[in-house]
Amino acid sequence: MRILVLNPNTSQGITERLMAAARPAAAAGTELVALTAPRGFPYIATRAEAQIGGAVALEMLAQHHGDFDAAIIAAFGDPGLFGARELFDIPVVGMAEAAMLTACMLGKRFAIVTFAQALGPWYHECVESHGLTGRLAGIRMLDGRFNSVSDVQDEKEQLLVELANLAVTEDEADVVILAGAPLAGLADKVKDRIPVPVVDQMAAAVKQAEALVSLKVRKATAGTFRRPAAKPAIGLSGPLTARFGPGES
Amino acid sequence: MRILVLNPNTSQGITERLMAAARPAAAAGTELVALTAPRGFPYIATRAEAQIGGAVALEMLAQHHGDFDAAIIAAFGDPGLFGARELFDIPVVGMAEAAMLTACMLGKRFAIVTFAQALGPWYHECVESHGLTGRLAGIRMLDGRFNSVSDVQDEKEQLLVELANLAVTEDEADVVILAGAPLAGLADKVKDRIPVPVVDQMAAAVKQAEALVSLKVRKATAGTFRRPAAKPAIGLSGPLTARFGPGES
Amino acid sequence: MRILVLNPNTSQGITERLMAAARPAAAAGTELVALTAPRGFPYIATRAEAQIGGAVALEMLAQHHGDFDAAIIAAFGDPGLFGARELFDIPVVGMAEAAMLTACMLGKRFAIVTFAQALGPWYHECVESHGLTGRLAGIRMLDGRFNSVSDVQDEKEQLLVELANLAVTEDEADVVILAGAPLAGLADKVKDRIPVPVVDQMAAAVKQAEALVSLKVRKATAGTFRRPAAKPAIGLSGPLTARFGPGES
Amino acid sequence: MRILVLNPNTSQGITERLMAAARPAAAAGTELVALTAPRGFPYIATRAEAQIGGAVALEMLAQHHGDFDAAIIAAFGDPGLFGARELFDIPVVGMAEAAMLTACMLGKRFAIVTFAQALGPWYHECVESHGLTGRLAGIRMLDGRFNSVSDVQDEKEQLLVELANLAVTEDEADVVILAGAPLAGLADKVKDRIPVPVVDQMAAAVKQAEALVSLKVRKATAGTFRRPAAKPAIGLSGPLTARFGPGES
Amino acid sequence: MRILVLNPNTSQGITERLMAAARPAAAAGTELVALTAPRGFPYIATRAEAQIGGAVALEMLAQHHGDFDAAIIAAFGDPGLFGARELFDIPVVGMAEAAMLTACMLGKRFAIVTFAQALGPWYHECVESHGLTGRLAGIRMLDGRFNSVSDVQDEKEQLLVELANLAVTEDEADVVILAGAPLAGLADKVKDRIPVPVVDQMAAAVKQAEALVSLKVRKATAGTFRRPAAKPAIGLSGPLTARFGPGES
Amino acid sequence: MRILVLNPNTSQGITERLMAAARPAAAAGTELVALTAPRGFPYIATRAEAQIGGAVALEMLAQHHGDFDAAIIAAFGDPGLFGARELFDIPVVGMAEAAMLTACMLGKRFAIVTFAQALGPWYHECVESHGLTGRLAGIRMLDGRFNSVSDVQDEKEQLLVELANLAVTEDEADVVILAGAPLAGLADKVKDRIPVPVVDQMAAAVKQAEALVSLKVRKATAGTFRRPAAKPAIGLSGPLTARFGPGES
Repeated sequence: MRILVLNPNTSQGITERLMAAARPAAAAGTELVALTAPRGFPYIATRAEAQIGGAVALEMLAQHHGDFDAAIIAAFGDPGLFGARELFDIPVVGMAEAAMLTACMLGKRFAIVTFAQALGPWYHECVESHGLTGRLAGIRMLDGRFNSVSDVQDEKEQLLVELANLAVTEDEADVVILAGAPLAGLADKVKDRIPVPVVDQMAAAVKQAEALVSLKVRKATAGTFRRPAAKPAIGLSGPLTARFGPGES
Repeated sequence: MRILVLNPNTSQGITERLMAAARPAAAAGTELVALTAPRGFPYIATRAEAQIGGAVALEMLAQHHGDFDAAIIAAFGDPGLFGARELFDIPVVGMAEAAMLTACMLGKRFAIVTFAQALGPWYHECVESHGLTGRLAGIRMLDGRFNSVSDVQDEKEQLLVELANLAVTEDEADVVILAGAPLAGLADKVKDRIPVPVVDQMAAAVKQAEALVSLKVRKATAGTFRRPAAKPAIGLSGPLTARFGPGES
Repeated sequence: MRILVLNPNTSQGITERLMAAARPAAAAGTELVALTAPRGFPYIATRAEAQIGGAVALEMLAQHHGDFDAAIIAAFGDPGLFGARELFDIPVVGMAEAAMLTACMLGKRFAIVTFAQALGPWYHECVESHGLTGRLAGIRMLDGRFNSVSDVQDEKEQLLVELANLAVTEDEADVVILAGAPLAGLADKVKDRIPVPVVDQMAAAVKQAEALVSLKVRKATAGTFRRPAAKPAIGLSGPLTARFGPGES
Repeated sequence: MRILVLNPNTSQGITERLMAAARPAAAAGTELVALTAPRGFPYIATRAEAQIGGAVALEMLAQHHGDFDAAIIAAFGDPGLFGARELFDIPVVGMAEAAMLTACMLGKRFAIVTFAQALGPWYHECVESHGLTGRLAGIRMLDGRFNSVSDVQDEKEQLLVELANLAVTEDEADVVILAGAPLAGLADKVKDRIPVPVVDQMAAAVKQAEALVSLKVRKATAGTFRRPAAKPAIGLSGPLTARFGPGES
Repeated sequence: MRILVLNPNTSQGITERLMAAARPAAAAGTELVALTAPRGFPYIATRAEAQIGGAVALEMLAQHHGDFDAAIIAAFGDPGLFGARELFDIPVVGMAEAAMLTACMLGKRFAIVTFAQALGPWYHECVESHGLTGRLAGIRMLDGRFNSVSDVQDEKEQLLVELANLAVTEDEADVVILAGAPLAGLADKVKDRIPVPVVDQMAAAVKQAEALVSLKVRKATAGTFRRPAAKPAIGLSGPLTARFGPGES
Repeated sequence: MRILVLNPNTSQGITERLMAAARPAAAAGTELVALTAPRGFPYIATRAEAQIGGAVALEMLAQHHGDFDAAIIAAFGDPGLFGARELFDIPVVGMAEAAMLTACMLGKRFAIVTFAQALGPWYHECVESHGLTGRLAGIRMLDGRFNSVSDVQDEKEQLLVELANLAVTEDEADVVILAGAPLAGLADKVKDRIPVPVVDQMAAAVKQAEALVSLKVRKATAGTFRRPAAKPAIGLSGPLTARFGPGES
């Protein structure tokens, strides 16, 4: 099966981190293809940026969905996820969603641990949008600046481990998610230093996308995730206009 | 004071409906200026369309916010509202938000009554995003087709009144909101045929925008609605790139 | 329009604070009239006092409602509000309600900051009664005694500003409400020392009462806020007996 | 032990119904004394009436609490309960509270079945105020007029039984509460015609008041139910003024 | 009346503690009979142990229920309670349930204070299973080892009092429950050192079981607590097999 | 990898249904081994049966866990799941849990559709125990008797399809779960007759168990799912006694 790893950020370095975490998780027979956002922000971190980055993700999917069996929106706040699930026929999985649902099978409450204060509010609303607030032990964020978002997982590794341990001892977390695309792949390096299961967001997303493809579920033609009725869009990319229009099946 | 009435839909006819409802509500001294989305959808009705329409709303605000004391995002699902509230210094009010908060002062639970089945899920998530689910008596939607979205309030007036009355008798609604931009102005025409207060979404939004301007509240420089840190955007409109960048105060 | 500012406390000094905050917020054409409770407590601070103070507020409204277009119950816990909304035909706004709903348009979660520990539980139940617990960042209360409730805003100004700042940094509040009738008018003096929007409860209540009058909403004759069926009361004030009886329209 | 059965309604006929249900439930050694409200409404049914009736209940308790080991506020919406629990040293139990908490030990979700539409909203807010909404299967109310509130349980017996059976089959109620002071004593007469446990509100209240007295729990001097700090009240009854003042222990 | 005090733990010492607390609470005419689990764990403290201990409680009840008017499952997490309520015709009360519901009549929010960290998660899920999370101020647990579970209330008395006081000052608890069967009877010894009402779990359970018997409520034959349909069990104790089978009334 | 498919029911016929659904879902390299409960009930359907069946599941796991990389508790209410997750080092997945979490990635709200009224309450509490009530559109159950629990999916196929369609049109379900072990494998047969994605519970459980093994997450040694401290059990099976005791790693 072919799975699209869609990075809605414009940083190629983050895409590389994502793929480095994704590849070892993929089953034999799974082909992963990465795509970096052609426009938007180096790293989505706020509601405003997610509004735009999510729209960019829809554009990217409109152009490429036909070549894949499933897609992963590989940013932790899942920008554009619910719209994509309406608009396209293939399964689309959010990286936050996959990490959180996987964590639910490993304990009662999970902690989200990330590298920057700015990410907290967006992540919090992401948890709420999935109806999982009751499973959240808390969100912990590092203070302070970092040199490069692509390498922040190396620079802050020890601080992130300490923060994860605090989430266990102070917030009663049963599971830890190291969250944010730049932290993809970190879980495997540090899991022996954290006394509860640590979920890697990207690896979890690969397994969940594979699971949905294997289950051969159909696209809804009823319910709230059926495809929107055709309508004429103005000023959008060609593939997006086509996808919203009557012409494409 | 100058208030921007931003229609994130591309239908000029809807803008006219909105302004016809807005003008009688404005205080002496309030100048209302309408703006219709230059790109997007004739009428936003789904999550996917709201993702894109909300991004278009941010573009429109980036270009025009400097000329206004406040802005109203005049679509019932409030596309782009929370991002706009982060990104700009002027107060930004959502039309759904204004209608619902106003309704809260008129009873315990409000009903949302609208003209098309497709709108229900998006409106429901809008209510949730404002944390007002506990105040919602229910969402009622008409079945069936209509001729023109700009004139649906005339075509379906009697059916909408009947639906509103059902919301009162069946769902125990204390207040009714006739929801969706195409229904702007309808409340005034039908309020004598509905036995509870009926809130006009556009009129409520004008009063709430005026209230926020009068209260002279400051823009947050802390908390989760402070302006996002400057960052280099790629491929966005000039004003939007500038607003996210370091150059503009 | 004529708006009644009903202080359910017996302190004339608090009424003066309330009016000093209310007048600058009123639109041209709005006449504000103050009324101080003729019986009850100098300052309502507990559930027991609110039970009685709310009944006094209904008495006051029964006597005076006919002369006004709207009324504000100007104590932060909104004593008697929901009963008044049932019983009278004019819009009645609670000062806490107005402050909280206004704060909702300025951020995600608001903090309530007040001057005495005793007020916390009552305010907390007030937030719950409005279904806004999900929007509350927290309630912070000063410790310690004060000299005069009418002047506590001067005496404790600096401590209240520090508490508001704590609410921002510790509780992630996006908006601050300086709560309790004795703090009316303080927001304007201190807003430059608090990095998020600060809502003045009294000013917000004036704007919301004006908005409801402008919107010309009707009194419910159905739903849970219709006027109670006529019944013979014993031992209540004349106007209140009349309002519950069959004689008055 | 001596228990006060405080009827906050002015109907002597309801007091008699309450006592007829209370006496058979009392343990040997329990003395029950009834008190009918000297002022207020024949039968409290709305928020406005409960605001006033609850204040009257506090007046009655201020005068009589010294003669009793515990008190029951014998109206289903528990008017004045939380204020009474703050203000007095003896245990005070609400009749709705006692019925609902007892029902919780007999199943997962209870239904409230009552004789008049007007009572629904007030009862619903009572359930919310106790934090028991999650345990509520639903509230069912008879339509239509009745001849005498004191005899409504005889007049409507069969219809109430049918409504209770509907609550079981349609709302999945595990337990039924026949609610409203005029229905006191009905449970025992009809329990063989309802296939789940039926709780008598008055009998439950007697057992719960006895339980609290037996447990010899102390009055709080901390927490949110400590007695309010002394303050000078104006225009209240002598015993109430004294209870709020510094003079009485 | 005869009430079974069923200790689902195998520790005879705990049974003695339970009975020492139960006897003084019993009314004249109440006969209490203790039963200690014949198999299982000395002291249930985790989900896994409660799964098994709850099944053992059902076995014990299957053998003995016919001799009693009511039963108490005397472990704080209420192992097996909801199954027992389905399976048997007599009222069955959980010790945690009885303590919590009793506490609800003494304040708004109760604290659970216990002697070991391991108990927290199980107790938390117990509170959730009763739908009382909104009434919980918090769970506080002692750190550190103890010598004997049967005597831990003597060994840790002062530390538990301090923890209870912290629950009042830090968590705003209105009521304290000293939780866990080994703490039965402690409330009475320490209540003068804690400034809010302290509920003894065992004494509360006795009063609630007595109340349910006095109220003469019937066994459900409909709803979700009706007796399970007869079915052939394999490999269970004789009385349990009989109770699930068609043979026993 | 080796995955244990643990049927906590004693019906061999159900085990065969489960395996027939499981095998096609397994990846190359996954070995599935079935185990039928040696004692308990032919088909668990109530709280009482789940209490006992869950204890039996722990016994079965105690004996066999050492031979497997993961285990599935293959009954829809997940009997014993949380205890198993504490007690054993391998990942343990519940069949209901797996189905519901998978459904969460295919829409907003899922419906549970099953073949017998008796199952509703237990399933409802299962959804609550996973904190997923907000994602539940509703539970729909067939009325009426069936001939054989092992063949009920054939006998009732058409009625179940109709019920699933009702869940879509009446309850606004975005996804359908055909729930209860006897329905394993039915999803694949009927998915073309239901207009939203249909999740097969057993297939989903296989994919989720494979995912957890692939992710190589560690066993918690802290948090609420660490292994219970060693303690001496009495009267349990040898392997279970050993697992709770100090002797086994």
